[in-house]
Amino acid sequence: MPVRPTELIIKKRDGYEHSEEELHALVRALMSGELTDYQMSAWLMAALLRGLSDRETVWLTEAMVDSGKRLELRRTLGPCVDKHSTGGVGDKLSIPLAPLVSACGLRVPMIAGRGLGHTGGTLDKLEAIPGYDVRISVPRFRRILKQVGASIMGATDAIAPADRRIYALRDVTGTVESRPLIVASILSKKLAVGLDALVLDVKCGRGAFMRTKKDARILARNLVRVATALGTRTVALITNMDEPLGTTIGNALEIRESLSILRGEGPADSTELTLALGEEMLLLSGAHASTQAGRQRARRQLEAAISSGLALERFARMVKLHGGDPAFVERPELLPQARHRVPVRAPIAGVVQAVDARVLAEVALGLGAGRARAQDDIDPAVGIELLKKRGDAVEKGQELCLLHAAQKTHLPLARVEQAFRIGRRAPGPLRLVHERITA
Amino acid sequence: MPVRPTELIIKKRDGYEHSEEELHALVRALMSGELTDYQMSAWLMAALLRGLSDRETVWLTEAMVDSGKRLELRRTLGPCVDKHSTGGVGDKLSIPLAPLVSACGLRVPMIAGRGLGHTGGTLDKLEAIPGYDVRISVPRFRRILKQVGASIMGATDAIAPADRRIYALRDVTGTVESRPLIVASILSKKLAVGLDALVLDVKCGRGAFMRTKKDARILARNLVRVATALGTRTVALITNMDEPLGTTIGNALEIRESLSILRGEGPADSTELTLALGEEMLLLSGAHASTQAGRQRARRQLEAAISSGLALERFARMVKLHGGDPAFVERPELLPQARHRVPVRAPIAGVVQAVDARVLAEVALGLGAGRARAQDDIDPAVGIELLKKRGDAVEKGQELCLLHAAQKTHLPLARVEQAFRIGRRAPGPLRLVHERITA
Repeated sequence: MPVRPTELIIKKRDGYEHSEEELHALVRALMSGELTDYQMSAWLMAALLRGLSDRETVWLTEAMVDSGKRLELRRTLGPCVDKHSTGGVGDKLSIPLAPLVSACGLRVPMIAGRGLGHTGGTLDKLEAIPGYDVRISVPRFRRILKQVGASIMGATDAIAPADRRIYALRDVTGTVESRPLIVASILSKKLAVGLDALVLDVKCGRGAFMRTKKDARILARNLVRVATALGTRTVALITNMDEPLGTTIGNALEIRESLSILRGEGPADSTELTLALGEEMLLLSGAHASTQAGRQRARRQLEAAISSGLALERFARMVKLHGGDPAFVERPELLPQARHRVPVRAPIAGVVQAVDARVLAEVALGLGAGRARAQDDIDPAVGIELLKKRGDAVEKGQELCLLHAAQKTHLPLARVEQAFRIGRRAPGPLRLVHERITA
Repeated sequence: MPVRPTELIIKKRDGYEHSEEELHALVRALMSGELTDYQMSAWLMAALLRGLSDRETVWLTEAMVDSGKRLELRRTLGPCVDKHSTGGVGDKLSIPLAPLVSACGLRVPMIAGRGLGHTGGTLDKLEAIPGYDVRISVPRFRRILKQVGASIMGATDAIAPADRRIYALRDVTGTVESRPLIVASILSKKLAVGLDALVLDVKCGRGAFMRTKKDARILARNLVRVATALGTRTVALITNMDEPLGTTIGNALEIRESLSILRGEGPADSTELTLALGEEMLLLSGAHASTQAGRQRARRQLEAAISSGLALERFARMVKLHGGDPAFVERPELLPQARHRVPVRAPIAGVVQAVDARVLAEVALGLGAGRARAQDDIDPAVGIELLKKRGDAVEKGQELCLLHAAQKTHLPLARVEQAFRIGRRAPGPLRLVHERITA
């Protein structure tokens, strides 16, 4: 018996829980056109305001997966592990992590997204590499994974197409903020790939979608519960996003920093978080025992993959198989470079107390590093290069950061200057990982 | 400064009150296409779940009026009064009321609607009259009002077109039930005409949209408050809709009953409610003082308009000016007649305790008297003719009602029989008007 679209909307509007069959019918009807965009929008708003239970979120996620193909990569490739971040300012960690973890013997089949906001998403960052093609076919994705162990591509029409349809509507109907819809959107793509283990980096703070630890914890628990119910071993780290991660914000700049991390020469914070996430990926996929000793072995394995050059070599091979020219790995100056580098200087001497991630994100967006609207173009070269971070001492007039910009005029120099809070005493250490959430 | 559609949706989603300017911007953006149907649907769902204040309802109503023309009929025609019913089974009262009240010296410019549900709306009923054109132009509407004092037409594109756009979306997105949206929809058309006074018949009971007196009271008060704030003197009667009104359900059948009412030969209940509503219209428009004596004079004036034949004559003239052939007024058999009349008989002797309006409504819909979907056709001839009503004594095997049907087979005779509850003792009197709500 077919379910009428209006009845589904009314059921959610009135606060009832949908059945598994109803949520599958909803997604099928959306994809077949039987349920219109305006009906889906009404349902999305009802779902945002009335909520979806964990069961409903699981069923919706599965229905979204079933709108496309399940790749089931682990059947042929062995243990597959992925990492997903809810996004933060300067967060480029997927790029070093994928080759790094693959260098430790796991497969990392990563379906990444584009960014809407301050900087590009992982795909936009990779596109700063001349020739890198994120729009590859599933067979090629499979081939790269087999050869290198890591591949980062965009979702194709075959992978959870309902997610794209729904996201496009959410974006313009004020329904992006629904937690269960966020969970279903993230997990539908991961589930379509078929993972053994998934590590989530849920960011919280001024530069993140979730501002408070409480909200981040609720989202992290929701993600872990639903992903686990969907049969994927999952752990989430709640990590700090009050300050930008690493020393670069902007697409090509973040590729450069990714290279530094893979060389063992990266900034302390972004390197440490890369290792912490990598550790979780190795433990969760069973490469090491989940004990203190296992954790130490995982850490040593990651560090060895960096110091041996294996991780960097994997990265170069992944780039090459994606059609990119890996020459930039040795010569980063081959990456797009902005015409101007304009320094912002410290107005007083002291110690940097804090760097406001949100303000710098908005500045980076203004420089052209991100998209205010989905149809906007990104300039891969522009961004911000931090020369001083929290805890660093500065002299008056010393450079705090460089703005990589396409033009020299109309730069918000005062605003950037104010993003650096300078005081007398050294601030306490920054806690990178707030919490670890397990099933 | 233009308001972004998504911001308006988010504001209502988060439970904030819109400003006057925002609601005008919302409706303007909808009409210009700047705000899409799927965005409007999300807003409508947010409005349903978060509510709209009285002020917001007033502003939304005005914005909907401003999407078209204001006719301002009272400026040229003198006192204009209208009546609106929230709809019930067998409710044809607009049809006798308009000519009756116009025969008492007032103008009744009535913009009526089509029905979705058990029977047609007023427009569908009028279209059972051969030739009656409900789609007339505004100048012709004005001319008929000048010549006869009463006209009943459908809303044209000139009159609150935003209401039609919004209603079409509400109908398929589960947002019909929002009280403020109901209020804005009803009042936008009334306000566009420009009335001095408006009498509302808010029905409650098994055969009505509002099942309980409490819900009906809330809607009635909301309507009266908002209409009064919009500058129209307004009164609402909360009336019983547990039993069908009058003795007919079905379009041509209800035209026949309207003729009986105008002849002074109508059923007791539909005649009494016609007079009660007419009385309110005369009092509210100032034709008589709002005192007990004034009320009695109004009642006598209405009765005189019927007994003198003036009201019936007005009706015939209104029909003629709408392109209809008024011959049916003298010869009702000229109205469409169903091929079959199938009696339903009393299974036992006794007194009719109750007649279930909802069940008969569903039967009438099944016969073809109404629309299940907006695109369905109506058969004007079919319906139900009640021969017995609550309080009537019946012998076993005596006819309770006649089904006017297009075919003789597959009629739900047992269901109709069960709609008549027959007991031993006479039931208490039916209270037609529960309450009167004033500003």
